[in-house]
Amino acid sequence: MTKPKLEFWFEFASTYSYLSAMRLPAAASNAGVEVHWRPFLLGPIFAVQGWDTSPFNIYAAKGRYMWRDLARRADRLGLTVEKPDPFPQNGILAARVAQIALERPEGIDFCQTIYRAQFSKGLNISDPSVVAACADAVGLPDGVIEAAQSDTNKLALRQTTDEATRRGLFGAPSFLVGDELFWGDDRLEDALDWAVRHAQ
Amino acid sequence: MTKPKLEFWFEFASTYSYLSAMRLPAAASNAGVEVHWRPFLLGPIFAVQGWDTSPFNIYAAKGRYMWRDLARRADRLGLTVEKPDPFPQNGILAARVAQIALERPEGIDFCQTIYRAQFSKGLNISDPSVVAACADAVGLPDGVIEAAQSDTNKLALRQTTDEATRRGLFGAPSFLVGDELFWGDDRLEDALDWAVRHAQ
Repeated sequence: MTKPKLEFWFEFASTYSYLSAMRLPAAASNAGVEVHWRPFLLGPIFAVQGWDTSPFNIYAAKGRYMWRDLARRADRLGLTVEKPDPFPQNGILAARVAQIALERPEGIDFCQTIYRAQFSKGLNISDPSVVAACADAVGLPDGVIEAAQSDTNKLALRQTTDEATRRGLFGAPSFLVGDELFWGDDRLEDALDWAVRHAQ
Repeated sequence: MTKPKLEFWFEFASTYSYLSAMRLPAAASNAGVEVHWRPFLLGPIFAVQGWDTSPFNIYAAKGRYMWRDLARRADRLGLTVEKPDPFPQNGILAARVAQIALERPEGIDFCQTIYRAQFSKGLNISDPSVVAACADAVGLPDGVIEAAQSDTNKLALRQTTDEATRRGLFGAPSFLVGDELFWGDDRLEDALDWAVRHAQ
C-alpha cells in the first residue's frame, strides 16, 4: 500500500484557506497522509458564477457571519484574525511565488507566512514588497519574485486554475483524494479520513 | 446555573437541516443542552439575496458537490438519501404543521418523519396527503392540517421568518445561543459547546 495522498487546493485570498493552511501540516502528519499543496485562483471561477468579488461581500449577512465564525475557529487554533483592507486581497503574485516555493523545502513555510501577513497582521499581499518580505523571511532565494513573473510560471497558474474548474472545484479550501472532492476547512478531517481509508 | 439552551432553526426543504434534525436530539442530550426547535422559511430570505430557487440549483458545481457530500455524511449517520423531485420542495405546509406539532410531545418525531419522507423516501412534502400521513404516523390529532392553515398560524410562521432575518440568519440549519449564530450542520458541535460554556 502506498502512503495516503491528499491534494490541498487553496487561494491566498480565502479566509478559511488560512485556517487549513495553518493546521494542515500537523493534521496530515498525525493521519499519515502526504499532501500536495496546490495554489490556484478563485477569481476566474467566481467570475463564471457571476461574482466580481467575494460572495462574503455580495451577501452581507453571510459575510458578517463568516468573520465571526472565522474568529471563533481561529481562536481555538491559537490564531488571531485581522481583516485585511481591501478584502478580498489580490493573491495572484503570492500564488505565483508559491508555485516556485513549493518546489523547495521552504514552500509550506512561505504559504503560512503569507497567510499570517494577510489575516493575522492585516497586510496587503498584493504589494510586491510584502510578498518579497515573506519570501525573504523564510529563506527563499533572491530573485524569486522576478522568477514568479515569468511567462512560463504565469501560464502554469492559469493551467492549475483551469484544472480546478475541470475537476469540479467551486471554492476554497478544497481537498481532493483522487476525484473525491471535499470543500471547506471543516471537511479537512473527512478528507484525511477518506485518504487513509481509500489508499491503494 | 440554568440549563444550557440552543435554538435550532431549520427549513424543511434544506438538505443539511435533514442531517441536523436527525442527529440533534441525541447530540443535545449528550451535551445536556435544551433545544428550542424553530421551523422557518428560507424562500423569503433567498428572494432578498436575488435567488428564486436553491443556491444548489443556481450554482451547478456546488450543487453536484452538495449531493455527494450529503450522501457521505448521511451514510456515517446511518441515513439514506434520495433526491426529491422537484428540488427544493415547498416546505411551507410542513412548517405550519410543525409549529403546532412542536407544542406537543410528538413534535420532534413529526419533524423527523417529514425529513425522512422527503430525503430518504423522495416523497413530495408539498402534497397535503404526504404531510397528513406523517402527522398521522406520529399520532398527531385529526384536524391538525386544517388548524395549521389558520390565519393565526400562517401569521406566526411569517413572523418567525421575519425574526430569522432580523437576527442575521441567511441559511439553514442555523443555531442560536442568545445572539451567537452558528450556520450549518457541521457547526452543531460548536454551537452545543458554546451553549454549555456560556450558560448563565
